[in-house]
Amino acid sequence: MDARPTVNPRLFGFVGGSHGPWRILESTAIVGEPLSEATFLDIVPGEPPHGPGCSWVLRGVTSHDRYVMRSEKTELVRRQQGLGRPDCTLAALIPIRKKAAWWALTQDERRDVFEAQSEHIGIGMRYLPAVARRLHHCRDLSRAEPFDFLTWFEFSPANASAFDDLLLALRASPEWTYVDREADVRLERAGA
Amino acid sequence: MDARPTVNPRLFGFVGGSHGPWRILESTAIVGEPLSEATFLDIVPGEPPHGPGCSWVLRGVTSHDRYVMRSEKTELVRRQQGLGRPDCTLAALIPIRKKAAWWALTQDERRDVFEAQSEHIGIGMRYLPAVARRLHHCRDLSRAEPFDFLTWFEFSPANASAFDDLLLALRASPEWTYVDREADVRLERAGA
Repeated sequence: MDARPTVNPRLFGFVGGSHGPWRILESTAIVGEPLSEATFLDIVPGEPPHGPGCSWVLRGVTSHDRYVMRSEKTELVRRQQGLGRPDCTLAALIPIRKKAAWWALTQDERRDVFEAQSEHIGIGMRYLPAVARRLHHCRDLSRAEPFDFLTWFEFSPANASAFDDLLLALRASPEWTYVDREADVRLERAGA
Repeated sequence: MDARPTVNPRLFGFVGGSHGPWRILESTAIVGEPLSEATFLDIVPGEPPHGPGCSWVLRGVTSHDRYVMRSEKTELVRRQQGLGRPDCTLAALIPIRKKAAWWALTQDERRDVFEAQSEHIGIGMRYLPAVARRLHHCRDLSRAEPFDFLTWFEFSPANASAFDDLLLALRASPEWTYVDREADVRLERAGA
């Protein structure tokens, strides 16, 4: 058999429920249906177990860059810092789904909306290294997932209002007219 | 629960074994490990069952365009025809994996290799509508898959040598220096 039943090593499960290292402070539906209620979040590598006390499970894989050009990548890598910094006790999980019209665009059209019109990379760059970020793709997983992307952000309490500014700028951009579901889950490291 | 255990509607399984509507004429390893032996191929929507007589299973999802620009897409759509034409009794399944170096390139670098250097779209265009094609992505599925892409081609016996020319041109391109596994499975519609 050439089928290898091992999990994609870039797959992560985000499990909302009654336990986990992140306490959910607030969960808002920005566009569309809300997530069900949960008090804690666990982030697990691989296929998440469906345990008791689990309210929702979202899955995503980290992957290669879709829009970034080499010059932008060089600058992003120079400025960004990793997840898990001790002072970054706050986090946000922003799951997003985009309309079919977005996916029907060609690469040049998506890049035009994403950066030329919306400065998605440019806006994000202004908040580095304050806001650390990891993007997960859900659209091409084996199961039908409720979102296309899950973005995980970590920042310190001192940068919480800067993070809100970042979201305001992105949500006001032309790219966001293609968003048809968006949730916003705010979290605090449990024990922080 | 927000987890929906339904399969991705764009997922297809390619099952090599002892039955199916396509008879395997030849299976060659172009680069890397060969596929195990099989005599027939079945293509199933969704998650393929692991039945008896199954030698290998490959999975992939159809997805949005990654490199094509609007002007190219317009021309492709104008020229191409669908799968399943009655005279297209021959087919090929070409599973490909690309090196980590490919996935580390940024979008502008990949597009440069893909089209400016390799004319991947331009070469394919010359064989339309003779060769019908459907591309499946495997890299961001939930399981670790042995290939990154599965391309399925259908053509008539009269166009079989044109199809070989298409493959020769692509395999001689700079893009193919990034390929680290490639299989080439040739098939005939069973009963044709």
